[in-house]
Amino acid sequence: MAPHDLLTALRDQNPLVHCITNYVAMNVAANVVLAAGASPAMVHAPEEIAEFTPVCGALTINIGTLSAPWQASMVAAATAANAQNIPWVLDPVAHFISDYRKRAAQLLLAQRPTILRGNASEILALAGEAGAGKGADSGDSVEAAQGAAKSLATQFGSVVAITGPVDYLTDGTREAQVSGGSPLMPQITALGCSQTALMGAYAATGPAFDAALAALAHFKVAGSAAAKRAEGPGSFQVHFLDALANTQPADLAQVIG
Amino acid sequence: MAPHDLLTALRDQNPLVHCITNYVAMNVAANVVLAAGASPAMVHAPEEIAEFTPVCGALTINIGTLSAPWQASMVAAATAANAQNIPWVLDPVAHFISDYRKRAAQLLLAQRPTILRGNASEILALAGEAGAGKGADSGDSVEAAQGAAKSLATQFGSVVAITGPVDYLTDGTREAQVSGGSPLMPQITALGCSQTALMGAYAATGPAFDAALAALAHFKVAGSAAAKRAEGPGSFQVHFLDALANTQPADLAQVIG
Amino acid sequence: MAPHDLLTALRDQNPLVHCITNYVAMNVAANVVLAAGASPAMVHAPEEIAEFTPVCGALTINIGTLSAPWQASMVAAATAANAQNIPWVLDPVAHFISDYRKRAAQLLLAQRPTILRGNASEILALAGEAGAGKGADSGDSVEAAQGAAKSLATQFGSVVAITGPVDYLTDGTREAQVSGGSPLMPQITALGCSQTALMGAYAATGPAFDAALAALAHFKVAGSAAAKRAEGPGSFQVHFLDALANTQPADLAQVIG
Repeated sequence: MAPHDLLTALRDQNPLVHCITNYVAMNVAANVVLAAGASPAMVHAPEEIAEFTPVCGALTINIGTLSAPWQASMVAAATAANAQNIPWVLDPVAHFISDYRKRAAQLLLAQRPTILRGNASEILALAGEAGAGKGADSGDSVEAAQGAAKSLATQFGSVVAITGPVDYLTDGTREAQVSGGSPLMPQITALGCSQTALMGAYAATGPAFDAALAALAHFKVAGSAAAKRAEGPGSFQVHFLDALANTQPADLAQVIG
Repeated sequence: MAPHDLLTALRDQNPLVHCITNYVAMNVAANVVLAAGASPAMVHAPEEIAEFTPVCGALTINIGTLSAPWQASMVAAATAANAQNIPWVLDPVAHFISDYRKRAAQLLLAQRPTILRGNASEILALAGEAGAGKGADSGDSVEAAQGAAKSLATQFGSVVAITGPVDYLTDGTREAQVSGGSPLMPQITALGCSQTALMGAYAATGPAFDAALAALAHFKVAGSAAAKRAEGPGSFQVHFLDALANTQPADLAQVIG
Repeated sequence: MAPHDLLTALRDQNPLVHCITNYVAMNVAANVVLAAGASPAMVHAPEEIAEFTPVCGALTINIGTLSAPWQASMVAAATAANAQNIPWVLDPVAHFISDYRKRAAQLLLAQRPTILRGNASEILALAGEAGAGKGADSGDSVEAAQGAAKSLATQFGSVVAITGPVDYLTDGTREAQVSGGSPLMPQITALGCSQTALMGAYAATGPAFDAALAALAHFKVAGSAAAKRAEGPGSFQVHFLDALANTQPADLAQVIG
């Protein structure tokens, strides 16, 4: 499906997206999903995962402020999604900063996410390669992680997205790049996490590769529009949410290379 | 008390409002309460509830990102509020999505909240009627839930508010409606949760029915003002907080029907 | 080091700051640290503290939405920071509201934070003096708490900052004051918590007293700039983040008295 058809469908269908994400990102991610046209639900209690995940159009899992109880819910939700063929997206935030987090990321990756999204350092580290990441920030170029992305895509049957100045997307065979956005984007917390949530919304609407591509394009288009009016990271955020809502389906194709 | 007297009193008294709310809403709800003129306190540790709730002007409980430890704190806080005749507000967010959440909502409702606020689907489901809610969103009209609201008000001795395009308020006998606001409001996460927190601030200031009515009116007035300047959901949020702070007491009567 | 040299160094070095803060403040504090030019990391799992804190430039601990599991992580992180001579900042939010919270604040204070930041009521109460604080708000003047600040600084070997209309800073011997900012600042939640996180970023860059002074000055400069354009607390937040990013090193000296 073409990106413009996917955005049209997303707004028509208003899919319910189950998001298990970190405390920093929850509000922003929910607003991003709403602005795009879908319906986010932040739910993490183990008592309700098995009942809730199966009624959603997609699931997204982000390990940003990970702790043991949340990890258990993430695994349960991924299992529930897989059992019902519900697409799900994994965001292995800063997993290279500790053994604890690395194990959690590998445990979730072994569940074979439909889509895996990370920055270059996260993708390199998931594939066992050394990188230069620092905390939540990437220290590596997107280009340097493309081989790791292809390898992960093949090994886990996932569509893999590396976000950065120019995004890279692969399913191990096909490849795409998305340009645009703004250098202000990494200066705002939780935008990458919100990109993951938006990928969930698109994945509820169409095939995984196409969905990830449309979500990347939607972010870049909105980021470019916001950058034209922003005077700093505070006003960028405001214009970015407005731009996500105001993006027209026909705009998406322009940023895909 | 008339809405304009309540807003004047709220700003004079700056009441302390104990909020137990969800991770998505915490920041927004605190800013809404501050912008209106009261003092929010987000506290949930079971070790301090019994000491803290009784010194507050009101308590608000929102089950948005519910988990077992938080549920225990919610029950303890409602018990402490009832023991001291401190008004409290219940927001049964999306309780219809799982048995776990339904039980939590019924457990809290059985504690007889001073005010109960929900969307139409939440109010219908609390009264045992089938609805069309999806996640945190209502799928039912406010009109369809008015009977359920009256029934709940009578059964639990609560003032019941249904928020939507036109809000409905009842204590089982009296009724009121509040119009205004903006279609952008449901596109922004946690505004309903923040309305609940604001009801707590007003409930610390005057009688429950009047307080709920003033809080509904304050939101609608600020929503209408923000909509005039917003270019999307991002700028709406900014203008909405400004408008909450800039709302004059005399403005509130205009939206009450 | 002079404030302007510290801000230049902060932007050059982009230090990694480990923040254990409350749910209300997490997003805002991360954005404040990013806007200033450093890299925040919100990490609290006990499984990764011992591995992560030592690789950071500084640690900040804020007890805003305290609970027992988080307290254990805070103590572990302070211990790890002390073991490696990593500077850390303590923010004893509203510790006077319950015995539970008082004990937590005293436990952390006994670990001898590099910098202690609070409002006047918090600093008075830490020193065992009665104050008029209410929830997260100060009810006392900065002047009234200066003696308590000096006493705490001497007893615990900490630099102590009292924030308010005019900030006060002391290490028990030296003193400084910082003016500017805006009366809107206390009307926005989590700005004090974010000031604490920013002090961590500066403390990663230079000596504690100088770092705390530069962080106070950066906030006041940005607050004054934002106040010129704000129409209420919503737009203030937006302009404040923009102003933090746009503050020039030479601006900082102007607000220090």
